[in-house]
Amino acid sequence: MEIGKETIIIVAGGTGTRMGKNIPKQFLDLQGKPILMHTIEVFHRFDRQMQIIVVLPHDQHKTWEALCKKHHFSINHQLTSGGETRFHSVKNGLALAPETGLIGIHDGVRPLVSAETIERCYTGAEQHGACIPVIPVTESVRLVEGDQSVPVDRSKYVLIQTPQVFKAEWIHQAYNQPFSGAFTDDATVLEKWGQKVVLTEGNFENIKITRPIDLTLAEALLKR
Amino acid sequence: MEIGKETIIIVAGGTGTRMGKNIPKQFLDLQGKPILMHTIEVFHRFDRQMQIIVVLPHDQHKTWEALCKKHHFSINHQLTSGGETRFHSVKNGLALAPETGLIGIHDGVRPLVSAETIERCYTGAEQHGACIPVIPVTESVRLVEGDQSVPVDRSKYVLIQTPQVFKAEWIHQAYNQPFSGAFTDDATVLEKWGQKVVLTEGNFENIKITRPIDLTLAEALLKR
Repeated sequence: MEIGKETIIIVAGGTGTRMGKNIPKQFLDLQGKPILMHTIEVFHRFDRQMQIIVVLPHDQHKTWEALCKKHHFSINHQLTSGGETRFHSVKNGLALAPETGLIGIHDGVRPLVSAETIERCYTGAEQHGACIPVIPVTESVRLVEGDQSVPVDRSKYVLIQTPQVFKAEWIHQAYNQPFSGAFTDDATVLEKWGQKVVLTEGNFENIKITRPIDLTLAEALLKR
Repeated sequence: MEIGKETIIIVAGGTGTRMGKNIPKQFLDLQGKPILMHTIEVFHRFDRQMQIIVVLPHDQHKTWEALCKKHHFSINHQLTSGGETRFHSVKNGLALAPETGLIGIHDGVRPLVSAETIERCYTGAEQHGACIPVIPVTESVRLVEGDQSVPVDRSKYVLIQTPQVFKAEWIHQAYNQPFSGAFTDDATVLEKWGQKVVLTEGNFENIKITRPIDLTLAEALLKR
Protein backbone atom coordinates (compact mmCIF):
# COMPACT_ATOMS: atom_id res chain seq x y z
CA MET A 1 0.00 0.00 0.00
CA GLU A 2 1.12 3.51 -0.74
CA ILE A 3 1.55 5.27 2.61
CA GLY A 4 -0.55 8.40 2.93
CA LYS A 5 -3.16 7.28 0.42
CA GLU A 6 -5.47 5.75 2.99
CA THR A 7 -8.54 7.28 4.58
CA ILE A 8 -10.77 5.89 7.31
CA ILE A 9 -14.30 7.15 7.94
CA ILE A 10 -15.36 6.22 11.47
CA VAL A 11 -19.13 6.35 11.86
CA ALA A 12 -20.57 6.72 15.36
CA GLY A 13 -24.30 7.28 15.38
CA GLY A 14 -25.31 5.75 18.71
CA THR A 15 -27.69 7.55 21.02
CA GLY A 16 -27.26 5.10 23.86
CA THR A 17 -30.80 3.79 24.19
CA ARG A 18 -29.93 0.11 23.58
CA MET A 19 -27.21 0.22 26.23
CA GLY A 20 -29.78 1.29 28.80
CA LYS A 21 -27.78 4.41 29.65
CA ASN A 22 -28.17 8.06 28.76
CA ILE A 23 -24.66 8.34 27.38
CA PRO A 24 -24.21 7.51 23.65
CA LYS A 25 -22.41 4.16 23.36
CA GLN A 26 -19.41 5.64 21.49
CA PHE A 27 -18.71 7.81 24.58
CA LEU A 28 -18.98 4.99 27.14
CA ASP A 29 -15.90 4.49 29.26
CA LEU A 30 -13.63 1.60 28.32
CA GLN A 31 -10.51 1.29 30.47
CA GLY A 32 -10.49 4.97 31.32
CA LYS A 33 -11.47 6.59 28.03
CA PRO A 34 -14.37 6.75 25.57
CA ILE A 35 -14.76 3.79 23.19
CA LEU A 36 -14.46 6.12 20.18
CA MET A 37 -10.96 7.22 21.23
CA HIS A 38 -9.81 3.59 21.32
CA THR A 39 -11.19 3.11 17.81
CA ILE A 40 -9.42 6.19 16.42
CA GLU A 41 -6.16 5.11 18.09
CA VAL A 42 -6.17 1.68 16.44
CA PHE A 43 -6.20 3.24 12.95
CA HIS A 44 -3.67 5.91 13.90
CA ARG A 45 -1.32 3.23 15.28
CA PHE A 46 -1.76 1.22 12.09
CA ASP A 47 -0.70 4.15 9.88
CA ARG A 48 0.19 7.53 11.33
CA GLN A 49 -0.39 9.12 7.89
CA MET A 50 -3.97 7.86 7.65
CA GLN A 51 -6.61 10.54 7.15
CA ILE A 52 -9.22 10.06 9.86
CA ILE A 53 -12.78 11.35 9.45
CA VAL A 54 -15.20 10.96 12.35
CA VAL A 55 -18.96 11.17 11.73
CA LEU A 56 -20.92 12.01 14.88
CA PRO A 57 -24.45 13.35 15.48
CA HIS A 58 -24.25 17.16 15.41
CA ASP A 59 -25.62 17.55 18.94
CA GLN A 60 -22.74 15.41 20.28
CA HIS A 61 -19.91 17.51 18.83
CA LYS A 62 -19.54 19.76 21.86
CA THR A 63 -19.45 16.78 24.23
CA TRP A 64 -16.84 15.11 22.02
CA GLU A 65 -14.66 18.22 21.97
CA ALA A 66 -14.90 18.46 25.75
CA LEU A 67 -13.97 14.77 26.08
CA CYS A 68 -10.93 15.26 23.79
CA LYS A 69 -9.79 18.16 25.97
CA LYS A 70 -10.34 16.22 29.19
CA HIS A 71 -8.40 13.18 27.93
CA HIS A 72 -5.67 15.25 26.19
CA PHE A 73 -6.62 13.41 23.01
CA SER A 74 -4.40 14.80 20.29
CA ILE A 75 -4.80 12.47 17.30
CA ASN A 76 -5.64 14.64 14.33
CA HIS A 77 -9.10 13.94 12.85
CA GLN A 78 -11.84 15.76 10.95
CA LEU A 79 -15.30 15.89 12.49
CA THR A 80 -18.53 15.96 10.52
CA SER A 81 -22.21 15.54 11.32
CA GLY A 82 -24.26 12.38 11.11
CA GLY A 83 -27.28 12.21 8.80
CA GLU A 84 -30.78 10.76 9.00
CA THR A 85 -29.59 7.17 8.37
CA ARG A 86 -26.22 5.43 8.33
CA PHE A 87 -26.17 5.91 4.52
CA HIS A 88 -26.47 9.68 4.92
CA SER A 89 -23.83 9.71 7.66
CA VAL A 90 -21.33 7.90 5.44
CA LYS A 91 -22.17 10.32 2.59
CA ASN A 92 -21.28 13.23 4.89
CA GLY A 93 -17.98 11.54 5.72
CA LEU A 94 -17.23 10.90 2.03
CA ALA A 95 -17.69 14.63 1.33
CA LEU A 96 -14.43 15.19 3.25
CA ALA A 97 -12.57 12.20 1.76
CA PRO A 98 -10.13 12.34 -1.18
CA GLU A 99 -11.12 11.27 -4.70
CA THR A 100 -8.24 8.81 -5.00
CA GLY A 101 -6.55 6.16 -2.86
CA LEU A 102 -8.39 3.75 -0.57
CA ILE A 103 -11.28 4.63 1.74
CA GLY A 104 -12.31 2.46 4.67
CA ILE A 105 -15.58 2.79 6.56
CA HIS A 106 -15.62 1.55 10.15
CA ASP A 107 -18.06 1.36 13.07
CA GLY A 108 -17.07 3.75 15.86
CA VAL A 109 -17.96 1.09 18.44
CA ARG A 110 -15.57 -1.57 17.13
CA PRO A 111 -12.43 -0.61 19.08
CA LEU A 112 -10.98 -4.14 19.03
CA VAL A 113 -10.29 -4.45 15.32
CA SER A 114 -6.78 -5.87 14.92
CA ALA A 115 -3.96 -4.33 12.87
CA GLU A 116 -3.94 -7.58 10.85
CA THR A 117 -7.62 -7.20 9.93
CA ILE A 118 -7.06 -3.56 8.87
CA GLU A 119 -4.03 -4.62 6.80
CA ARG A 120 -5.97 -7.43 5.08
CA CYS A 121 -8.89 -5.13 4.22
CA TYR A 122 -6.78 -2.33 2.70
CA THR A 123 -4.58 -4.81 0.84
CA GLY A 124 -7.64 -6.65 -0.46
CA ALA A 125 -9.24 -3.38 -1.60
CA GLU A 126 -6.04 -2.32 -3.36
CA GLN A 127 -6.04 -5.62 -5.28
CA HIS A 128 -9.76 -6.09 -5.90
CA GLY A 129 -11.36 -2.67 -5.42
CA ALA A 130 -13.52 -3.63 -2.45
CA CYS A 131 -12.80 -5.83 0.55
CA ILE A 132 -14.70 -6.58 3.79
CA PRO A 133 -13.77 -8.65 6.87
CA VAL A 134 -15.85 -11.67 7.91
CA ILE A 135 -15.76 -14.36 10.59
CA PRO A 136 -17.31 -17.84 10.56
CA VAL A 137 -20.50 -18.61 12.47
CA THR A 138 -19.61 -20.76 15.49
CA GLU A 139 -23.14 -21.73 16.63
CA SER A 140 -25.74 -23.90 14.90
CA VAL A 141 -28.10 -21.78 12.78
CA ARG A 142 -31.77 -22.06 11.89
CA LEU A 143 -33.81 -20.23 9.28
CA VAL A 144 -37.19 -19.17 10.67
CA GLU A 145 -40.18 -19.15 8.33
CA GLY A 146 -43.41 -18.22 10.08
CA ASP A 147 -43.88 -20.69 12.94
CA GLN A 148 -41.54 -23.22 11.34
CA SER A 149 -37.76 -23.32 11.42
CA VAL A 150 -35.22 -25.39 9.53
CA PRO A 151 -31.56 -26.06 10.28
CA VAL A 152 -29.15 -24.58 7.73
CA ASP A 153 -25.51 -25.38 7.01
CA ARG A 154 -23.70 -22.80 9.12
CA SER A 155 -20.45 -23.31 7.19
CA LYS A 156 -22.06 -21.46 4.26
CA TYR A 157 -22.67 -18.31 6.29
CA VAL A 158 -20.32 -15.60 7.52
CA LEU A 159 -20.76 -12.66 9.90
CA ILE A 160 -19.79 -9.25 8.56
CA GLN A 161 -17.47 -6.83 10.37
CA THR A 162 -15.76 -3.55 9.49
CA PRO A 163 -13.63 -1.80 8.20
CA GLN A 164 -15.15 -2.19 4.74
CA VAL A 165 -12.53 -0.78 2.37
CA PHE A 166 -12.97 0.48 -1.19
CA LYS A 167 -11.19 2.21 -4.05
CA ALA A 168 -12.07 5.88 -3.53
CA GLU A 169 -13.50 6.27 -7.05
CA TRP A 170 -15.84 3.30 -6.58
CA ILE A 171 -17.27 4.22 -3.20
CA HIS A 172 -17.79 7.89 -4.14
CA GLN A 173 -19.77 6.86 -7.22
CA ALA A 174 -21.69 4.14 -5.38
CA TYR A 175 -22.81 6.66 -2.75
CA ASN A 176 -24.16 8.94 -5.49
CA GLN A 177 -27.01 6.47 -5.92
CA PRO A 178 -30.35 7.37 -4.35
CA PHE A 179 -30.91 5.94 -0.86
CA SER A 180 -32.52 2.52 -0.54
CA GLY A 181 -33.80 0.72 2.55
CA ALA A 182 -32.01 -2.40 1.22
CA PHE A 183 -28.61 -0.88 2.06
CA THR A 184 -27.56 -2.78 5.18
CA ASP A 185 -23.89 -1.83 4.97
CA ASP A 186 -21.40 -0.18 2.59
CA ALA A 187 -20.80 -3.41 0.68
CA THR A 188 -24.47 -3.59 -0.30
CA VAL A 189 -24.31 0.03 -1.58
CA LEU A 190 -21.35 -0.89 -3.77
CA GLU A 191 -23.00 -4.07 -5.03
CA LYS A 192 -26.18 -2.19 -5.97
CA TRP A 193 -23.95 0.06 -8.09
CA GLY A 194 -22.73 -3.10 -9.85
CA GLN A 195 -19.35 -3.99 -8.35
CA LYS A 196 -18.29 -7.06 -6.40
CA VAL A 197 -16.80 -7.19 -2.90
CA VAL A 198 -14.12 -9.63 -1.86
CA LEU A 199 -14.21 -11.21 1.61
CA THR A 200 -11.21 -11.45 3.92
CA GLU A 201 -10.64 -12.75 7.43
CA GLY A 202 -11.74 -10.50 10.31
CA ASN A 203 -10.88 -11.12 13.96
CA PHE A 204 -13.19 -12.60 16.62
CA GLU A 205 -12.34 -9.81 19.09
CA ASN A 206 -13.63 -7.19 16.63
CA ILE A 207 -17.04 -7.03 18.29
CA LYS A 208 -19.55 -4.22 17.86
CA ILE A 209 -20.31 -2.81 21.30
CA THR A 210 -24.08 -2.47 21.40
CA ARG A 211 -25.20 -4.28 24.56
CA PRO A 212 -23.87 -4.21 28.15
CA ILE A 213 -22.48 -7.76 27.68
CA ASP A 214 -20.31 -6.44 24.83
CA LEU A 215 -18.76 -3.77 27.05
CA THR A 216 -17.93 -6.44 29.64
CA LEU A 217 -16.25 -8.53 26.96
CA ALA A 218 -14.35 -5.56 25.50
CA GLU A 219 -13.00 -4.69 28.94
CA ALA A 220 -11.87 -8.27 29.50
CA LEU A 221 -10.20 -8.43 26.08
CA LEU A 222 -8.37 -5.13 26.54
CA LYS A 223 -7.07 -6.23 29.95
CA ARG A 224 -5.73 -9.46 28.51
CA MET B 1 -43.69 -28.52 35.78
CA GLU B 2 -43.94 -31.53 38.03
CA ILE B 3 -40.97 -31.41 40.38
CA GLY B 4 -38.78 -34.50 40.22
CA LYS B 5 -39.79 -35.42 36.70
CA GLU B 6 -36.93 -33.60 35.03
CA THR B 7 -33.64 -35.02 33.82
CA ILE B 8 -30.65 -33.23 32.33
CA ILE B 9 -27.98 -34.97 30.27
CA ILE B 10 -24.82 -32.87 30.25
CA VAL B 11 -22.54 -33.82 27.39
CA ALA B 12 -18.85 -32.94 27.63
CA GLY B 13 -16.78 -34.43 24.86
CA GLY B 14 -13.98 -31.91 24.54
CA THR B 15 -10.37 -33.01 24.26
CA GLY B 16 -8.94 -29.53 24.49
CA THR B 17 -7.23 -29.27 21.12
CA ARG B 18 -9.16 -26.17 19.94
CA MET B 19 -8.35 -24.30 23.15
CA GLY B 20 -4.66 -24.76 22.46
CA LYS B 21 -4.14 -26.43 25.83
CA ASN B 22 -3.67 -30.03 26.87
CA ILE B 23 -6.52 -29.96 29.36
CA PRO B 24 -10.02 -30.85 28.02
CA LYS B 25 -12.09 -27.64 27.85
CA GLN B 26 -14.74 -28.91 30.30
CA PHE B 27 -12.00 -29.16 32.96
CA LEU B 28 -10.54 -25.68 32.36
CA ASP B 29 -10.52 -23.46 35.39
CA LEU B 30 -13.23 -20.81 35.59
CA GLN B 31 -13.15 -18.72 38.76
CA GLY B 32 -11.47 -21.44 40.75
CA LYS B 33 -13.21 -24.57 39.52
CA PRO B 34 -13.71 -26.63 36.35
CA ILE B 35 -16.24 -25.30 33.82
CA LEU B 36 -18.22 -28.57 34.06
CA MET B 37 -18.85 -28.05 37.80
CA HIS B 38 -20.36 -24.63 37.10
CA THR B 39 -22.64 -26.19 34.49
CA ILE B 40 -23.84 -28.95 36.84
CA GLU B 41 -24.44 -26.39 39.60
CA VAL B 42 -26.72 -24.23 37.43
CA PHE B 43 -29.12 -27.14 36.87
CA HIS B 44 -28.92 -28.28 40.49
CA ARG B 45 -29.72 -24.74 41.69
CA PHE B 46 -32.64 -24.61 39.25
CA ASP B 47 -34.20 -27.81 40.66
CA ARG B 48 -32.56 -29.77 43.45
CA GLN B 49 -34.61 -32.83 42.46
CA MET B 50 -33.32 -32.85 38.92
CA GLN B 51 -31.66 -36.09 37.80
CA ILE B 52 -28.24 -35.17 36.43
CA ILE B 53 -26.40 -37.41 33.96
CA VAL B 54 -22.89 -36.44 32.86
CA VAL B 55 -21.42 -37.92 29.68
CA LEU B 56 -17.64 -37.74 29.59
CA PRO B 57 -14.97 -39.58 27.54
CA HIS B 58 -14.09 -42.77 29.43
CA ASP B 59 -10.42 -41.86 29.77
CA GLN B 60 -11.37 -38.64 31.61
CA HIS B 61 -13.45 -40.34 34.34
CA LYS B 62 -10.54 -40.75 36.77
CA THR B 63 -9.47 -37.12 36.32
CA TRP B 64 -13.05 -36.01 36.89
CA GLU B 65 -13.37 -38.05 40.07
CA ALA B 66 -10.11 -36.60 41.34
CA LEU B 67 -11.33 -33.07 40.53
CA CYS B 68 -14.60 -33.70 42.40
CA LYS B 69 -12.63 -34.84 45.43
CA LYS B 70 -10.25 -31.89 45.24
CA HIS B 71 -13.08 -29.36 45.00
CA HIS B 72 -15.34 -31.15 47.53
CA PHE B 73 -17.94 -31.30 44.79
CA SER B 74 -20.92 -33.10 46.26
CA ILE B 75 -23.78 -32.61 43.79
CA ASN B 76 -25.20 -36.03 43.02
CA HIS B 77 -24.81 -37.06 39.37
CA GLN B 78 -24.45 -40.21 37.30
CA LEU B 79 -21.41 -40.57 35.10
CA THR B 80 -21.33 -42.42 31.78
CA SER B 81 -18.92 -42.70 28.88
CA GLY B 82 -18.90 -40.68 25.68
CA GLY B 83 -19.26 -42.42 22.32
CA GLU B 84 -17.71 -42.06 18.90
CA THR B 85 -19.80 -38.99 17.99
CA ARG B 86 -22.03 -36.61 19.94
CA PHE B 87 -25.04 -38.72 18.82
CA HIS B 88 -23.53 -41.81 20.43
CA SER B 89 -22.64 -39.86 23.58
CA VAL B 90 -26.23 -38.67 23.99
CA LYS B 91 -27.45 -42.24 23.39
CA ASN B 92 -25.24 -43.41 26.27
CA GLY B 93 -26.73 -40.71 28.48
CA LEU B 94 -30.27 -41.63 27.47
CA ALA B 95 -29.60 -45.24 28.54
CA LEU B 96 -29.55 -43.95 32.15
CA ALA B 97 -32.54 -41.59 31.77
CA PRO B 98 -36.14 -42.36 32.77
CA GLU B 99 -38.77 -43.34 30.20
CA THR B 100 -41.17 -40.59 31.31
CA GLY B 101 -41.02 -36.92 32.24
CA LEU B 102 -38.87 -34.35 30.46
CA ILE B 103 -35.26 -34.83 29.35
CA GLY B 104 -32.94 -31.94 28.58
CA ILE B 105 -29.64 -32.25 26.74
CA HIS B 106 -27.02 -29.57 27.43
CA ASP B 107 -23.46 -28.75 26.40
CA GLY B 108 -21.05 -29.24 29.30
CA VAL B 109 -19.20 -26.06 28.29
CA ARG B 110 -22.22 -23.75 28.56
CA PRO B 111 -21.99 -22.80 32.26
CA LEU B 112 -23.73 -19.44 31.80
CA VAL B 113 -27.20 -20.68 30.88
CA SER B 114 -29.70 -18.70 32.94
CA ALA B 115 -32.39 -20.16 35.21
CA GLU B 116 -34.93 -18.32 33.01
CA THR B 117 -33.69 -20.06 29.86
CA ILE B 118 -33.85 -23.47 31.60
CA GLU B 119 -37.37 -22.69 32.84
CA ARG B 120 -38.55 -21.62 29.37
CA CYS B 121 -37.13 -24.76 27.72
CA TYR B 122 -38.67 -27.24 30.18
CA THR B 123 -42.01 -25.40 30.18
CA GLY B 124 -42.00 -25.27 26.37
CA ALA B 125 -41.21 -29.00 26.15
CA GLU B 126 -44.00 -29.81 28.60
CA GLN B 127 -46.45 -27.90 26.41
CA HIS B 128 -45.19 -28.81 22.93
CA GLY B 129 -43.04 -31.92 23.38
CA ALA B 130 -39.77 -30.34 22.24
CA CYS B 131 -38.30 -26.90 22.90
CA ILE B 132 -34.90 -25.33 22.17
CA PRO B 133 -33.43 -21.92 23.10
CA VAL B 134 -32.33 -19.46 20.40
CA ILE B 135 -30.93 -15.94 20.19
CA PRO B 136 -31.11 -13.43 17.35
CA VAL B 137 -28.13 -12.78 15.08
CA THR B 138 -26.70 -9.34 15.91
CA GLU B 139 -24.24 -8.98 13.01
CA SER B 140 -24.91 -8.63 9.28
CA VAL B 141 -24.85 -12.03 7.56
CA ARG B 142 -23.78 -13.22 4.11
CA LEU B 143 -24.35 -16.51 2.35
CA VAL B 144 -21.20 -17.69 0.59
CA GLU B 145 -21.57 -19.61 -2.68
CA GLY B 146 -18.25 -20.48 -4.26
CA ASP B 147 -16.34 -17.20 -4.76
CA GLN B 148 -19.55 -15.15 -4.57
CA SER B 149 -21.43 -13.98 -1.51
CA VAL B 150 -24.84 -12.41 -1.06
CA PRO B 151 -26.29 -10.50 1.89
CA VAL B 152 -29.20 -12.26 3.61
CA ASP B 153 -31.86 -10.93 5.95
CA ARG B 154 -30.36 -11.66 9.36
CA SER B 155 -33.73 -11.21 11.08
CA LYS B 156 -34.80 -14.55 9.56
CA TYR B 157 -31.96 -16.45 11.23
CA VAL B 158 -31.42 -17.54 14.83
CA LEU B 159 -28.46 -19.07 16.66
CA ILE B 160 -29.12 -22.30 18.54
CA GLN B 161 -28.19 -22.88 22.18
CA THR B 162 -28.90 -25.60 24.75
CA PRO B 163 -30.56 -27.08 26.82
CA GLN B 164 -32.71 -28.73 24.17
CA VAL B 165 -35.59 -30.30 26.08
CA PHE B 166 -37.92 -33.11 25.02
CA LYS B 167 -40.67 -35.39 26.25
CA ALA B 168 -38.80 -38.50 27.38
CA GLU B 169 -40.85 -40.82 25.14
CA TRP B 170 -40.07 -38.74 22.05
CA ILE B 171 -36.35 -38.37 22.51
CA HIS B 172 -35.83 -42.04 23.43
CA GLN B 173 -37.60 -43.11 20.25
CA ALA B 174 -35.85 -40.51 18.10
CA TYR B 175 -32.47 -41.76 19.29
CA ASN B 176 -33.39 -45.30 18.24
CA GLN B 177 -32.94 -44.17 14.63
CA PRO B 178 -29.71 -45.14 12.90
CA PHE B 179 -26.95 -42.50 13.05
CA SER B 180 -26.83 -39.90 10.28
CA GLY B 181 -24.15 -37.33 9.53
CA ALA B 182 -26.97 -34.79 9.08
CA PHE B 183 -27.63 -34.77 12.85
CA THR B 184 -26.11 -31.45 13.96
CA ASP B 185 -27.93 -31.34 17.30
CA ASP B 186 -30.69 -33.13 19.22
CA ALA B 187 -33.43 -31.11 17.54
CA THR B 188 -32.39 -32.41 14.12
CA VAL B 189 -32.53 -36.00 15.45
CA LEU B 190 -36.10 -35.42 16.66
CA GLU B 191 -37.14 -33.75 13.40
CA LYS B 192 -35.76 -36.64 11.36
CA TRP B 193 -38.01 -38.90 13.44
CA GLY B 194 -40.95 -36.70 12.36
CA GLN B 195 -41.69 -34.34 15.23
CA LYS B 196 -41.48 -30.56 15.40
CA VAL B 197 -39.44 -28.44 17.78
CA VAL B 198 -40.62 -25.15 19.23
CA LEU B 199 -38.17 -22.26 19.68
CA THR B 200 -37.90 -20.20 22.84
CA GLU B 201 -35.69 -17.33 23.97
CA GLY B 202 -32.17 -18.23 25.15
CA ASN B 203 -29.80 -15.80 26.87
CA PHE B 204 -26.86 -13.99 25.26
CA GLU B 205 -24.52 -14.98 28.12
CA ASN B 206 -25.16 -18.68 27.38
CA ILE B 207 -22.01 -19.00 25.28
CA LYS B 208 -20.30 -22.26 24.37
CA ILE B 209 -16.73 -22.11 25.63
CA THR B 210 -14.63 -23.38 22.75
CA ARG B 211 -11.99 -20.70 22.15
CA PRO B 212 -9.71 -18.77 24.55
CA ILE B 213 -11.76 -15.60 23.90
CA ASP B 214 -14.85 -17.42 25.25
CA LEU B 215 -13.10 -18.24 28.51
CA THR B 216 -12.14 -14.58 28.90
CA LEU B 217 -15.76 -13.57 28.33
CA ALA B 218 -17.11 -16.22 30.72
CA GLU B 219 -14.76 -15.02 33.46
CA ALA B 220 -15.86 -11.41 32.94
CA LEU B 221 -19.54 -12.39 33.00
CA LEU B 222 -19.20 -14.48 36.16
CA LYS B 223 -17.39 -11.63 37.95
CA ARG B 224 -20.12 -9.18 37.02
